[in-house]
Amino acid sequence: MVRCMILSPLTPSKIHQLPTSIQPFKFNHTTNSSSISSFLPKSISLKNGNFEYPISLKSNSSKTCVFCTKAVLYETQFPKVGAQSFGSIPAHQLLHVVENAAKVGAQVVMEAVNKPRKISYKGLTDLVTETDKMSEAAILEVVRTNFKDHLILGEEGGIIGDSSSDYLWCIDPLDGTTNFAHGYPSFAVSVGVLFRGRPVAAAVVEFVGGAMCWNTRTFTATAGGGAFCNGQPIQVSTNDLVERSLLVTGFGYEHDEAWLTNINLFKDFTDVSRGVRRLGAAAVDMCHVALGIVDAYWEYRLKPWDMAAGVLIVEEAGGAVSRMNGEKFCVFDRSVLVSNGVLHPKLLEKIGPATDRLKEKSIDFSWWYKPENYSTDL
Amino acid sequence: MVRCMILSPLTPSKIHQLPTSIQPFKFNHTTNSSSISSFLPKSISLKNGNFEYPISLKSNSSKTCVFCTKAVLYETQFPKVGAQSFGSIPAHQLLHVVENAAKVGAQVVMEAVNKPRKISYKGLTDLVTETDKMSEAAILEVVRTNFKDHLILGEEGGIIGDSSSDYLWCIDPLDGTTNFAHGYPSFAVSVGVLFRGRPVAAAVVEFVGGAMCWNTRTFTATAGGGAFCNGQPIQVSTNDLVERSLLVTGFGYEHDEAWLTNINLFKDFTDVSRGVRRLGAAAVDMCHVALGIVDAYWEYRLKPWDMAAGVLIVEEAGGAVSRMNGEKFCVFDRSVLVSNGVLHPKLLEKIGPATDRLKEKSIDFSWWYKPENYSTDL
Repeated sequence: MVRCMILSPLTPSKIHQLPTSIQPFKFNHTTNSSSISSFLPKSISLKNGNFEYPISLKSNSSKTCVFCTKAVLYETQFPKVGAQSFGSIPAHQLLHVVENAAKVGAQVVMEAVNKPRKISYKGLTDLVTETDKMSEAAILEVVRTNFKDHLILGEEGGIIGDSSSDYLWCIDPLDGTTNFAHGYPSFAVSVGVLFRGRPVAAAVVEFVGGAMCWNTRTFTATAGGGAFCNGQPIQVSTNDLVERSLLVTGFGYEHDEAWLTNINLFKDFTDVSRGVRRLGAAAVDMCHVALGIVDAYWEYRLKPWDMAAGVLIVEEAGGAVSRMNGEKFCVFDRSVLVSNGVLHPKLLEKIGPATDRLKEKSIDFSWWYKPENYSTDL
Repeated sequence: MVRCMILSPLTPSKIHQLPTSIQPFKFNHTTNSSSISSFLPKSISLKNGNFEYPISLKSNSSKTCVFCTKAVLYETQFPKVGAQSFGSIPAHQLLHVVENAAKVGAQVVMEAVNKPRKISYKGLTDLVTETDKMSEAAILEVVRTNFKDHLILGEEGGIIGDSSSDYLWCIDPLDGTTNFAHGYPSFAVSVGVLFRGRPVAAAVVEFVGGAMCWNTRTFTATAGGGAFCNGQPIQVSTNDLVERSLLVTGFGYEHDEAWLTNINLFKDFTDVSRGVRRLGAAAVDMCHVALGIVDAYWEYRLKPWDMAAGVLIVEEAGGAVSRMNGEKFCVFDRSVLVSNGVLHPKLLEKIGPATDRLKEKSIDFSWWYKPENYSTDL
């Protein structure tokens, strides 16, 4: 489905000139026409200063219409990332295990949180590495006890299990390691399970507060079943204006062209929004979008274990998920933009072209990794 | 007192060539010589490739010595910002009132935190403005009940009271308004009281956690009496390496040259440190330095109510406070750098020259505001 954004003022009389078939779409105004081209489907042609384009409606009927100058088309509903099927295992069973696994990992992390931090650098590194490994081991134990033959991708242990399985577990035993090392909130334990490459169930346990008041909250979701925080349903924000948005982003360890591009995006959005937060844990940032306390999050250079749970939680909370250039996303990708949905196209006006320029510079945007022989519906 | 940083490798034999009188100082290595000139006192002259300079020691004796090429001098102990005297009111009494005032304000904020957020923009703006005003009114009530004749500077109400008073209360009834509006942790209530222009007692109530798990923690300090979080003594971190540091900064509403300079500093330090966080509440960020969970914080364009409490809490936790160009700080200034102390000169190597360049561009770095007729020891 496509939505049309009118870049020239849309007067009431103009609205009535529009073909009835596209009137149900929401029209937004914007003064920024710099990135029109990047959102025009290839089938669009410019004719007499107007955009003439085929528009696909819900009924899949196709119609060509001309209605105004300076219009930009974009996809309104970014393709769903969640799985269409749970396979042979009921949703509630997957959710039970995924949540239990994340909570067992979180217990390990909480014990480490309460250990004194004023230790040598070597000691601190050891604490982080040990916690990471112990948390992953505890999570693996839960998964393997329940599903012996599932495939598992852990940040620490890499890929294990049966690659002929339809289920792939993506485990981040400690997301936000730097924050954890410094005792700076937030960080998280993130567990997501895919069915044939698409997330079906997710749990993220976030550590909040900090010294003197550590606490956790647990985000969960199943494909098609909604998103929850501590058992209560959650929803993304409804804000549709960039200038009223609160955003959040991240910067990876590799300081390459993508890093530099995101520094510039940080600057651009800090300039035009209410603020861009930089908190330091991908899974947490995505859960914050789902909770509606920030409107969008993006980052280059992520891994499946960073994203598998978070993207499903955002989508089930009513948000949208795409690659940073607006293309269809899957958890094997290297970048993600998640938002409340209504802001997605507006953010892509800047983020999309910036990302496409990286592609032109031969920055790798192919899948980061898909386990060999793992069959997907992607 | 000055410290000497040797920029060329300092071998053991070279150490023994140093004048005995300066050997007790700590020597650090760095490879970055780009900002030498900005830290050289005017009395230093370059002679035969060596720096020849007068060095002031603890005993205030003065001695000229020559010892190596590429050396940079900087102040090791940044002048204290806390008051030397409490005046006629005992420390414990000021602390009691300052803490009570901040907590009463925090009660107002907590009631607003629990109100539903999914309301119209106008409604949200009203909620923020109302909470700000009601919190300030509650704080003022506490201060004026206890000290009728003190001078008070509130973010909302401006200056009130008797300008002949030695005591000036600086009140931020809701620091981090944007975060509050979005329900994004953290934000705070900040109350600091000055005696003749210098902080004597401070309290910051931080709101942590967020939806489903809101909580608060209270930071307090008195000049010379140490800093505390929820009654427990706190200390800054001991990390002395920029590459192992976790930093935090802020960007104000005004997007001028200073804003742009800080975007560049954000980039530079994101590149060389473990990360620069952007959380959105000045008083909170400073308390996090005091708590040792981040190593430093800086921001241009702050106001006395943003800083009065936070700077004292950092200093009393063992940290250092200066203007962003390294000069002596007072709460009427427009910029601040707070750190764990040992990192301060290293951070100033970048932040100092960047700030000095702003001064050269006629960006105003004079005091932002000092109440007329208010007498200080500054």
